[in-house]
Amino acid sequence: MSKTCPPLPAMVIKLLGAALLSLGATVQAQAPAAKPARSAADILAQSPASDWRSPDPRDTLLMELQTARGPGQVLIELAPRFAPRHVANIRSLARAGYYDGLAVVRVQDNFVTQWGDPDADKPDKARPLGEAQARLPAEFSIAYKDLPISRLPDVDGWAPVSGFVDGFPVAAQPEADKAWLTHCYGMVGAGRGNAPDSSTGSSLYTVIGHAPRGLDLNITLVGRVIKGMELLASLPRGGGAMGFYVQAEQRSPIQRVRLLADMPDAERPRLQLLRTDSKTWLELLDARRHRSGWFVHSPAHIEVCSAGVPSRPAP
Amino acid sequence: MSKTCPPLPAMVIKLLGAALLSLGATVQAQAPAAKPARSAADILAQSPASDWRSPDPRDTLLMELQTARGPGQVLIELAPRFAPRHVANIRSLARAGYYDGLAVVRVQDNFVTQWGDPDADKPDKARPLGEAQARLPAEFSIAYKDLPISRLPDVDGWAPVSGFVDGFPVAAQPEADKAWLTHCYGMVGAGRGNAPDSSTGSSLYTVIGHAPRGLDLNITLVGRVIKGMELLASLPRGGGAMGFYVQAEQRSPIQRVRLLADMPDAERPRLQLLRTDSKTWLELLDARRHRSGWFVHSPAHIEVCSAGVPSRPAP
Repeated sequence: MSKTCPPLPAMVIKLLGAALLSLGATVQAQAPAAKPARSAADILAQSPASDWRSPDPRDTLLMELQTARGPGQVLIELAPRFAPRHVANIRSLARAGYYDGLAVVRVQDNFVTQWGDPDADKPDKARPLGEAQARLPAEFSIAYKDLPISRLPDVDGWAPVSGFVDGFPVAAQPEADKAWLTHCYGMVGAGRGNAPDSSTGSSLYTVIGHAPRGLDLNITLVGRVIKGMELLASLPRGGGAMGFYVQAEQRSPIQRVRLLADMPDAERPRLQLLRTDSKTWLELLDARRHRSGWFVHSPAHIEVCSAGVPSRPAP
Repeated sequence: MSKTCPPLPAMVIKLLGAALLSLGATVQAQAPAAKPARSAADILAQSPASDWRSPDPRDTLLMELQTARGPGQVLIELAPRFAPRHVANIRSLARAGYYDGLAVVRVQDNFVTQWGDPDADKPDKARPLGEAQARLPAEFSIAYKDLPISRLPDVDGWAPVSGFVDGFPVAAQPEADKAWLTHCYGMVGAGRGNAPDSSTGSSLYTVIGHAPRGLDLNITLVGRVIKGMELLASLPRGGGAMGFYVQAEQRSPIQRVRLLADMPDAERPRLQLLRTDSKTWLELLDARRHRSGWFVHSPAHIEVCSAGVPSRPAP
């Protein structure tokens, strides 16, 4: 992991779009010269502590994976405001150790990485859900009214409104009083079968490619990967239909999944996320719309899935 | 590679959005029941041979990589209509064996995989470009007038017009008579330094995450990966700034890069691409806008970067 986890400087530059598709080390070293007047790095460096938050330990999962490249950690922030029943179920499953020993079963290029019980559909072999609910209502959308959304002024082709709530990318249709989490890179959803209410949170997926926003309002999104996406996105693609692994040994085992709240305080990863209702966030979005330095053309536009919410190690 | 290359059925389902985020094998097996009335698979199966084309061998590169997971092949179709000078340079570099023995030097999660000469910026160690041009004009856009574009009716936030030309995703500003290749997943560009005209095609990158369309009109796109994206997208992310590898041994070596035209006919990979000016393509796009089966909600929308152009082994 540490080898593949970019340090904060890289994340900051990435926030800039990391547009320095440089020829090599020298130009890479010139990166500072290629940033806007007030760069994303400067905006972040000058941000007040109050613009940052620590994810709630009761809403944050730590998934420990074993991969052919070694062990890795994935942190997932759950979204109880949008999928309360699924989040409650996932908490219950994690506390019961349901996910421990399961595996990544599917990696489809430019689409999703999915994990869960490889035997979920074999009644005789499927792991029991224990005290978790075996049937949940679909949680595809919530009410838009009174939703504290940091709305983007930018045109979005998929929905009349887009923006951020609690750090999550959101789209909405105010006239229908509907809002929903949208399928941006790194978002986590609950796999379902053909019945809209057939997801339980026992099988989860994350988006590893271009946002498949056509899935919005069709499946329950439950959270977002806030650390470790580079691990889930770089697993070998599955050779079967829809990217499922054909041989069991190709699957990456899940060693365990815990809620941070259930871990000894000293063992909890310390991560902070920029508040998407903060002035710093609005300034960062504007820095992405209006480029300078390396850029000769400014898009004067961003989209809800092209702006990653920055994180940093807790000070 | 063969392990991670999805077979055509998987590609077809992927074209559908592969929205069956199923709980496992059984539901996966039910996939046919979850497709629209006339599914993408049916549309493709019933497509006339005349709706398919073979990429021009003079415009198609075969890159052979060595990775920790084994060897792999990447096919890149060049876009001479959009970047004639860069494409000519890349042909010249490939014919001179310039890329042979170079390496993937950078993989930044949700952004790009970049390859070239690790010593490009060390005058004493940089590999000479030979007969290729050391300086080229930037080729960021071309004229829109008379461009044979299959225009999308869907709203695009980044440009007034979007669509497809010669199988490539394109955006345009008709009132400025400008059109350009756009940074969708799998598009290939020529790395540059701070000077807009500092790209030569000696360092190339491909998009491995959500389309960074803010790069459009800032750097020269030269083509598209038509086979092997799952290889370039699943390499370990680099731990240095902007995803550059820190240790040389982390780089994946490029064994060789050849134009198909320079290969014995029998050795050329046989691949066909769906014509983006065909009726079949328009029907596929419509099948993505209007879903059924597994879907309970249809987006009634697509975007230029959410529609992958299908390929198939040549019959």
